[in-house]
Amino acid sequence: MLPGVGVFGTGSTARVLVPLLQAEGFEVHALWGQSEEEACGLAKELSIPFHTSRSDDVLLHQDVDLVCIYIPPSMTRQIAVKALGIGKNVVCEKAATAIDSFKMVTAARYYPQLLSMMGNTLRFLPAFVAMRQLLVEGYVGDIQVCDVRVYGPSLLDQSYGWTSEELMGGGGLHIVGSTIIDLLSYLTGHRAHRVHGLLRTFVEQNNLIRGIRRVTSDDFCFFQMLMSRTGSSGVCCTVTLNFNMPGSFVHEVMVVGSAGRLIVRGTELYGQRNESKCEELLLADISGVGPEVKEMSLPHLQGLSSMVKALRQSFQAHEERRLWSQGPVASAPTFEDGLYVQTVVEAVKRSSISGEWVCVEIMSQEPDPNQNLCEALQRNKN
Amino acid sequence: MLPGVGVFGTGSTARVLVPLLQAEGFEVHALWGQSEEEACGLAKELSIPFHTSRSDDVLLHQDVDLVCIYIPPSMTRQIAVKALGIGKNVVCEKAATAIDSFKMVTAARYYPQLLSMMGNTLRFLPAFVAMRQLLVEGYVGDIQVCDVRVYGPSLLDQSYGWTSEELMGGGGLHIVGSTIIDLLSYLTGHRAHRVHGLLRTFVEQNNLIRGIRRVTSDDFCFFQMLMSRTGSSGVCCTVTLNFNMPGSFVHEVMVVGSAGRLIVRGTELYGQRNESKCEELLLADISGVGPEVKEMSLPHLQGLSSMVKALRQSFQAHEERRLWSQGPVASAPTFEDGLYVQTVVEAVKRSSISGEWVCVEIMSQEPDPNQNLCEALQRNKN
Repeated sequence: MLPGVGVFGTGSTARVLVPLLQAEGFEVHALWGQSEEEACGLAKELSIPFHTSRSDDVLLHQDVDLVCIYIPPSMTRQIAVKALGIGKNVVCEKAATAIDSFKMVTAARYYPQLLSMMGNTLRFLPAFVAMRQLLVEGYVGDIQVCDVRVYGPSLLDQSYGWTSEELMGGGGLHIVGSTIIDLLSYLTGHRAHRVHGLLRTFVEQNNLIRGIRRVTSDDFCFFQMLMSRTGSSGVCCTVTLNFNMPGSFVHEVMVVGSAGRLIVRGTELYGQRNESKCEELLLADISGVGPEVKEMSLPHLQGLSSMVKALRQSFQAHEERRLWSQGPVASAPTFEDGLYVQTVVEAVKRSSISGEWVCVEIMSQEPDPNQNLCEALQRNKN
Repeated sequence: MLPGVGVFGTGSTARVLVPLLQAEGFEVHALWGQSEEEACGLAKELSIPFHTSRSDDVLLHQDVDLVCIYIPPSMTRQIAVKALGIGKNVVCEKAATAIDSFKMVTAARYYPQLLSMMGNTLRFLPAFVAMRQLLVEGYVGDIQVCDVRVYGPSLLDQSYGWTSEELMGGGGLHIVGSTIIDLLSYLTGHRAHRVHGLLRTFVEQNNLIRGIRRVTSDDFCFFQMLMSRTGSSGVCCTVTLNFNMPGSFVHEVMVVGSAGRLIVRGTELYGQRNESKCEELLLADISGVGPEVKEMSLPHLQGLSSMVKALRQSFQAHEERRLWSQGPVASAPTFEDGLYVQTVVEAVKRSSISGEWVCVEIMSQEPDPNQNLCEALQRNKN
């Protein structure tokens, strides 16, 4: 039996997610928005019976067994941890900081019987599922290089908000780069141990953001990751993100190995073995997912659709609404993956400032809450 | 009147160059090869009346007024400098080191009436000539990012030789990266002031190179260049070179600016302005250059053809065979450009070893010949 769903957020993802959930047979019982108006407007539009701007009203709602959290990163941790504490299953987007991610990991470990899943939809996209399978089967031989590029129009919201603020989780690296970091560890089976990056904000002001306000989040980001692999030189990943290209939607992930290569362009998978003269189409776009949404790229959109299907499969076998099976969501990113991704994001940011390679060190205990204060005092002294 | 030509080299470029020269009306009088057999074989094939394995025989040949040098980088400096000293015009490929390049610059400065030109043919490719013109006219607005990738099969020779040796000028960075470094300064009008790079040799041995011999030259290279521009944050260039992709020939140069972008794919120019919904083809491939040569990418091949045409125009207006006009070859890379390129190449290599950003500092006087010795002694002490 499918669980009742409560959705946090009124942005573009929430707007796409609700119809997808409904189409798979989930009942969406409650919607939370930052303001009463936003919540009311979208609830009416999507036929959701209950709406609110108070988070507890959704979390404590008796028909809600699964909470989907698509809100600004800085608010994610609080809602996700609370939802688990109340005994609800959670699917959520990224947090704002590694500390937030660590707190979410702690909560998820405390409630292992509850579903706690990061919503990186690329892992569910059929093209990447097929790519991973072929990588495991040795289509490309030993993986040498992963080369990713995402080009598109600006990620900034219409009005000044968290997307403009680096510290609030805005920027190409945090919003899109994090999905790529997660995807590459999924595809290669390895994690980055050293990273190097360069972030730029080419457009600091526009018609909506002017005066003394400036965009601090990156609109161009380039980073490299060296992935660990025992007994060899490891995999080099290069990722280029450019969001100063209105009218473009390039989303290309290439994996090059000793025996061939695989490339996902958009939602289609191509491959070429070394001895072959030309590329072959390995998985065509079977699409059929509604009209393209302006704010969301097709790979994410179709991945979201596949994720919702996997959720349905995970829950439907059980009589009890809150019970779920591991199988269909086995490849979903966990909160631990979320912490890894957030750690890499912060390492790339540090590298961009220092110009140096930065080691990726996953937090294993919560930092002393006084540390920030100490560091601030230290800085003032210098 | 066109000058008589002497060609150094029997490799793939020389093999393509001679027929192009002959087609434009140049007489190729002499050919030099490393061995008598190589020289003899190719001279017969290309109907060159004189061949030798002694460089002086070509340099002192009375009918030779223009010397084209396409030989291993470590031998280039010696021939180029000597040719200028004898009063011959010179077109040559890159040298092996910045010191060699500096010596060539010194010679070129000493004989300003002689033509001294680096043979980077990409500057002559019509697509890049048009791209540069559009950049000057402001098609993309302020240039923000240049993104280049070149993917192809291995650059290694059939047998073990200089292409396998990093110190001899082998590797993707030296062979192909140098042409891109030169091209980007031509296109943007700026030079790199800081670089960061990562070089890898994924394939250290193959069927022809085994035993204790290993390839030391890179087959994967990624580098970034920050280009100087006064009064702004400057242009970021990212360059990805991968020569572990047999069956691929990707040669793509993209320039992204505040108002749009321009892309050369292979030999064709595409553009898109920010307000436009799709890309437009700005310059189609007008091609017609003979069959594709396996060892040479189409952009280089067509650029070579355009370069030979420019050389013809430069010389044909003059009665005296050694005189030439600046006009048609005004955009050609000088030996000074060659020194800049070589300096960037070495900075990228240093960055790959240290992991740090490296400043590009052009040599302004020849280093003390004892310096290497001193450094070696210093290293031994530590």
